[in-house]
Amino acid sequence: MSNMLDSISDVLLMGPGPSMVNDAVYKAMGTRLVGHMDFEFIELMNAVKEQLRTLCNTANEVTMPMSGTGSAGMETCCVNLIEPGDQVLILHNGVFSGRMMDVASRLGAEVDVLEFAWGTPVLPGKVKEKLTAKSYSIVGVIHAETSTGVCNPVEEIGELVKKNGALYLVDSVTGLGGIEVALDKWGVDAFYSGTQKCLSCPPGLSPVSFSEKALEKLRARKKKVPNWYLDMTLITQYWQGQNRVYHHTAPISMNYALYQALALILEEGPTAVFARHRAMHEMLVAGLEKMGFSMFVEKSCRLPMLNLVVCPDGVDEAALRKNLRVKHKIELGGGLGPLAGKVLRIGVMGETAREKYVQRLLDALKEETGRG
Amino acid sequence: MSNMLDSISDVLLMGPGPSMVNDAVYKAMGTRLVGHMDFEFIELMNAVKEQLRTLCNTANEVTMPMSGTGSAGMETCCVNLIEPGDQVLILHNGVFSGRMMDVASRLGAEVDVLEFAWGTPVLPGKVKEKLTAKSYSIVGVIHAETSTGVCNPVEEIGELVKKNGALYLVDSVTGLGGIEVALDKWGVDAFYSGTQKCLSCPPGLSPVSFSEKALEKLRARKKKVPNWYLDMTLITQYWQGQNRVYHHTAPISMNYALYQALALILEEGPTAVFARHRAMHEMLVAGLEKMGFSMFVEKSCRLPMLNLVVCPDGVDEAALRKNLRVKHKIELGGGLGPLAGKVLRIGVMGETAREKYVQRLLDALKEETGRG
Repeated sequence: MSNMLDSISDVLLMGPGPSMVNDAVYKAMGTRLVGHMDFEFIELMNAVKEQLRTLCNTANEVTMPMSGTGSAGMETCCVNLIEPGDQVLILHNGVFSGRMMDVASRLGAEVDVLEFAWGTPVLPGKVKEKLTAKSYSIVGVIHAETSTGVCNPVEEIGELVKKNGALYLVDSVTGLGGIEVALDKWGVDAFYSGTQKCLSCPPGLSPVSFSEKALEKLRARKKKVPNWYLDMTLITQYWQGQNRVYHHTAPISMNYALYQALALILEEGPTAVFARHRAMHEMLVAGLEKMGFSMFVEKSCRLPMLNLVVCPDGVDEAALRKNLRVKHKIELGGGLGPLAGKVLRIGVMGETAREKYVQRLLDALKEETGRG
Repeated sequence: MSNMLDSISDVLLMGPGPSMVNDAVYKAMGTRLVGHMDFEFIELMNAVKEQLRTLCNTANEVTMPMSGTGSAGMETCCVNLIEPGDQVLILHNGVFSGRMMDVASRLGAEVDVLEFAWGTPVLPGKVKEKLTAKSYSIVGVIHAETSTGVCNPVEEIGELVKKNGALYLVDSVTGLGGIEVALDKWGVDAFYSGTQKCLSCPPGLSPVSFSEKALEKLRARKKKVPNWYLDMTLITQYWQGQNRVYHHTAPISMNYALYQALALILEEGPTAVFARHRAMHEMLVAGLEKMGFSMFVEKSCRLPMLNLVVCPDGVDEAALRKNLRVKHKIELGGGLGPLAGKVLRIGVMGETAREKYVQRLLDALKEETGRG
């Protein structure tokens, strides 16, 4: 019988995720299954928790991958920590903070929004005004906005949220593994990420972390969490303690892969990994600017791993992306929301942040545009 | 650096899932990633939908894997189709119908329960009485109860539910791939399964299917689905139609694996696969009874793929399971809930339903118990 998998192309993944995956991670994912309650798997779960704590710079006991992709992490933080009528403030400057508004509203939160132009960062001065005027239950922000390429000043915002008394919710789906994440120093109470960006692991899991203050809010809920699958009061009984209680069947192979992906990062050393992302970003930007492409985001708040790029006059971004994918087998991303058709989104995340890949893209762009 | 994955044991998985995985499925899972919006991945998504429709005997357009494990499928059906105040009837005879009661209650349903003793099937006569007396929004039942080994008469119940006018919700996490599933013939409106049982694919996805009647209920909701991640109105825009809309990043590798696992079943032929499950079940039961083990469930409603077994006097089930795992590297399951400590749960699911594996278990049991 014909098998579609035999004709899947070998694509260089330079979009907004998934990113390239190291062969060791593919190999790890194929490790033979043991049961989800097996003592060997429980040891692996403990190791993954410890790896995540190290990379997130946190002592939070509740630090573990949820059994869903990045958006399941957003859902987890919101559904566990929001009760109907809660006052929630979302700092909004892209698609993913917009999604957070939607998720929180569906759960019955009263959502206030503080907006900033897409492509610009959240301004702590404005946040301070808002937080001085009103007391919130939760304040949510995106660390690394995948739709705009902006890095938000999460540490400064954290200090303001702490004074307000609100829980601090931070999305770093795109940040974790590519730039520093320091949950305890920043005062983050609820955190989530994804595996398919700078962790360079296939999509399928969402690392989350809850502070003691978040757990207090969870314990004080008036009603059960309205989502059994993502109920952290049940999931922690599976992921913690001496006697594990069955909740759901964890995606075992994905956890093997995450273990290996995190091991590679910790072996290279987070500081070296972040420096590599920075260096590859600089190589990419220099090459792009030489060809007449320009960066959408100011240098001061630009993410290294996710680059929004405006094409030079006369270059059609949709046609360019199509040619890159079909002729060169390179995937780039297009713009989302109001930026659709206006920008390219180029990822240099995790394993993709290698000189050979950045050079291959620059060569292909040169060929396609006749520039540089 | 030491790598925990190198010391993961090669375990014969004969518990209630995960089951053994064919090498072709492990290989498929390691196929290089393409993007979640890539045309090659969209073709694969279409193929998986078609495979699932074939195995589920349904023409439902909305038939696709959700990006979570089996319990995410339960959550999906409930959160999309239940609105606060809805009258829901759960036919309860095991852990998983109990879970369904919990999930539905959390979503604000008024839950009626019709109980049957664990280890016995739902009795259509009793269901008829209940459905004649009251009109329901949804009636939920478990096809193959993983906690008891009972097969419930889902086809007969379906006729009664149809007369009542309720939506018919069927869980076949353990049934699909091991016994016939015929959604259209049975009048099922909402269905979910899991990958790690008789589909013999690693855990991580939950196939679901919605009938047109279920979609009408979804479209008529007064409020948005209170779960963004599992909102079928959004997910169908990603899984269907000419122009796919990004929702979340699907677990690409898991979908590769599911495609391959389904291809193997369809190549062997569902009828042959079901017969193999039946034959391996009979071989297991004959061997067990020869050693003095007895079956917990009456023959007439016994599942072939999940066997609840009572140990002979003098054989301690916990010690036996431990010895099998440690000395023989064979995983069996223990009892859940009120059956904890009272039974073994032995799975012959998918790839595990092979003579070599059943024989290896019987030989190990003989050695451990000195019987047979």
